[in-house]
Amino acid sequence: MRVSRPSVCCVIGAGDATGSAIARRFAQEGYTVCVARRNEEALRPLIQEIRDQGGHAFAFGMDARREEQVVSFFNQIEADVGQIDAVVFNVGGNVRFPILETTSQKYFKVWEMCAMAGFLVGREAARVMLQRERGTILFTGATASTRGGAGFSAFAGGKAALRALAQSMARELGPKGIHVAHIIIDGLIDTEFARQNFTDYVNDVGHDGILNPDHIAQAYWYLNSQPKDSWTFELDLRPSVEKW
Amino acid sequence: MRVSRPSVCCVIGAGDATGSAIARRFAQEGYTVCVARRNEEALRPLIQEIRDQGGHAFAFGMDARREEQVVSFFNQIEADVGQIDAVVFNVGGNVRFPILETTSQKYFKVWEMCAMAGFLVGREAARVMLQRERGTILFTGATASTRGGAGFSAFAGGKAALRALAQSMARELGPKGIHVAHIIIDGLIDTEFARQNFTDYVNDVGHDGILNPDHIAQAYWYLNSQPKDSWTFELDLRPSVEKW
Amino acid sequence: MRVSRPSVCCVIGAGDATGSAIARRFAQEGYTVCVARRNEEALRPLIQEIRDQGGHAFAFGMDARREEQVVSFFNQIEADVGQIDAVVFNVGGNVRFPILETTSQKYFKVWEMCAMAGFLVGREAARVMLQRERGTILFTGATASTRGGAGFSAFAGGKAALRALAQSMARELGPKGIHVAHIIIDGLIDTEFARQNFTDYVNDVGHDGILNPDHIAQAYWYLNSQPKDSWTFELDLRPSVEKW
Amino acid sequence: MRVSRPSVCCVIGAGDATGSAIARRFAQEGYTVCVARRNEEALRPLIQEIRDQGGHAFAFGMDARREEQVVSFFNQIEADVGQIDAVVFNVGGNVRFPILETTSQKYFKVWEMCAMAGFLVGREAARVMLQRERGTILFTGATASTRGGAGFSAFAGGKAALRALAQSMARELGPKGIHVAHIIIDGLIDTEFARQNFTDYVNDVGHDGILNPDHIAQAYWYLNSQPKDSWTFELDLRPSVEKW
Repeated sequence: MRVSRPSVCCVIGAGDATGSAIARRFAQEGYTVCVARRNEEALRPLIQEIRDQGGHAFAFGMDARREEQVVSFFNQIEADVGQIDAVVFNVGGNVRFPILETTSQKYFKVWEMCAMAGFLVGREAARVMLQRERGTILFTGATASTRGGAGFSAFAGGKAALRALAQSMARELGPKGIHVAHIIIDGLIDTEFARQNFTDYVNDVGHDGILNPDHIAQAYWYLNSQPKDSWTFELDLRPSVEKW
Repeated sequence: MRVSRPSVCCVIGAGDATGSAIARRFAQEGYTVCVARRNEEALRPLIQEIRDQGGHAFAFGMDARREEQVVSFFNQIEADVGQIDAVVFNVGGNVRFPILETTSQKYFKVWEMCAMAGFLVGREAARVMLQRERGTILFTGATASTRGGAGFSAFAGGKAALRALAQSMARELGPKGIHVAHIIIDGLIDTEFARQNFTDYVNDVGHDGILNPDHIAQAYWYLNSQPKDSWTFELDLRPSVEKW
Repeated sequence: MRVSRPSVCCVIGAGDATGSAIARRFAQEGYTVCVARRNEEALRPLIQEIRDQGGHAFAFGMDARREEQVVSFFNQIEADVGQIDAVVFNVGGNVRFPILETTSQKYFKVWEMCAMAGFLVGREAARVMLQRERGTILFTGATASTRGGAGFSAFAGGKAALRALAQSMARELGPKGIHVAHIIIDGLIDTEFARQNFTDYVNDVGHDGILNPDHIAQAYWYLNSQPKDSWTFELDLRPSVEKW
Repeated sequence: MRVSRPSVCCVIGAGDATGSAIARRFAQEGYTVCVARRNEEALRPLIQEIRDQGGHAFAFGMDARREEQVVSFFNQIEADVGQIDAVVFNVGGNVRFPILETTSQKYFKVWEMCAMAGFLVGREAARVMLQRERGTILFTGATASTRGGAGFSAFAGGKAALRALAQSMARELGPKGIHVAHIIIDGLIDTEFARQNFTDYVNDVGHDGILNPDHIAQAYWYLNSQPKDSWTFELDLRPSVEKW
């Protein structure tokens, strides 16, 4: 007798806001979620919450910039947890400096987080998915993905490289049954950090002016549920009141 | 006693494939749908189908290039049917000619269908929606919306103008509570016309290679259901096997 | 004995600033210039100036939105003046209105000036140039060519359509020896109008903050002089201090 | 008595084709050129050629991915040669691999050559130029700068990051008097490598189908000579017969 394996969604960069919301959403829809961030400890409340609601979730401490960690993350999940059908790459790295104050260390680190980590995750996701010719890979972008604003040489560079990766993978892997998409989040996300550091702005714009992580998660879920004849490569998300 | 008025979705350019599918979808979700095309007669089967499934639908014969017809369409619906909360502009007009064979009549007509009609519908939709500071306006785009390919001077011109209109309206009306979005359909849609004129291609690519109108309609519904803090301006839709 | 015919540059939309500067520049380089605008009388000083400097120039009263006028303009020049090797389309039409205040008359008129006139000029230029498989067609764009800002539904629509035309023509006609290019002017041009209506701004930004028409003309000349293996389709021009 | 210092143009990535042509062109216009590539030896013929024609040229062995080498390159030239008024970053790195065959070493190396080296050169160029609030920094882009084609995840990532850097620097440094521009070269360049590896293609398309390095150099010179009120950020260059 053969028992079907659970369908797994991996969220790499499962921060307290967007990444967690995406994980909760996929868990509600029946996916077993495997969430990863550098600090595994910080994932405990999320895992507990998903399990309390009857979902299946596992936490992984991983630095997505390290190839061997990424490779073993995917191998271990395929071996021990289930079949990886969705992968979300949600690692951040927003910084802003005048060009003369942008150190090579900083420039490198931002690229490593945005692009190298995205490359490693995307490639390894593709490796397991190509065996079955199915799966969805979702990359989180930002305003900087398509615009190099003053002071954003590092962040815009990393995000532009990530978007180029997503495009390249979508064109190569789409005909092989793998859906690759890129979500441009253009606005402030409702996080603890935002509420503490942009308190006045947050109070001023109100609910409609700041992106709710659960609503962002809804976009990821929508993309994951698109049938093969109607795939979206890119969509943007912004508050109604945002200037753009 | 005050009875709440029905929520109305207008579909202008309700052809047999995409427009009809969008109308059916919004009807299933409880909207009263008002569908319009030049040939009112051709709308009968759609109206019948929606009513058979318990939905509410009304047909309008309208040439969306004629200002007085567009104005009275919106006025009549607001007066007699309900509150217009969603408007879909889905008028087509794809043609391809070498530049020397593109007549001024053809160039004008394609623009009139793509852009002038889109402007009239968009503006009048905004007029009724701005009173309530709510509503969704969705414009159908195409590959030509962002690319002027050889032979597409007329069609790409019309579609590029429509996209510029959508962007301009989104930036002006978003902060006033109206969600304007633009959907880029990049690929062949599964229509009678396609099956008869591109039979070999359709048979060759199979289900996954041709856009299913019901799946397109799902994207329109998704956009309409986005909360105010997380609006998409633009998304693309294409079959997994499409070259782009 | 066969005398070689003069090489002609046509400037349609030869206003007092950019169009005139382009005409002067091509005249200095040895072209016979044929300048056109609706008010032929207003071209007199330009014609006089070019002739005073030893150049060859002819004025034409033409409404570029009228097909028969455009056709006869090109025919007459080819018959009576020389061989048309360069054509510059420089008709403007910048307006800004909230969407509800944008009348259909205004929307139509702006499109007619930006796009229909551009189409007629571009097509007729292509017709004469294709006989010889050589020539340059240059279209003037603006910030609105690639961005639909709030209030610019009409102007951005017209300019986006013009850019789509230019792209489409470039892709079709490049392999046939005709160079089509599009210049995006992103900033205030130094005109009488600007100095009278934006006096404070002009004084504030100084020389470097406002586009000098002679410098714009230099870009057009540069594009016209590119060899066939290295053609530019698009370049932007903006003052060093411009925000973008 | 104070003698004015020579005006210097630095070309980093002075390969045998484009980089050398740019160096020759700036030397002809009176600039002292300082050319750099990893293999200093390979620069000898170029230096000799420029000197034979009466120009001033110096060769530097430099790996532009190494910060200390880039810093000392600029410092040494400012101390010993003259005032750096133009800097051209022309390092390449085109590779194409399916995503599964793209190693992390390759992905890193391509980024290091395209983006990290571009960042180091751009930043150090800005550092010396900001003292005088003048100068031009030109970055060489490619088709992949704006399009992530299948198989180009590494190259498109590096080039997209370089373009984002150029945009970011242009927006920050323009108002401070420094002109930053990005040139998109979209087509095959006439090099020894191209003639040996794409012989049939080169013979087939002929002169007009392959970019002549001297003509590319003309575009760089044109950008360098633009007045401050009319700067171009980006232009593309492609053969007339190129598909795009």
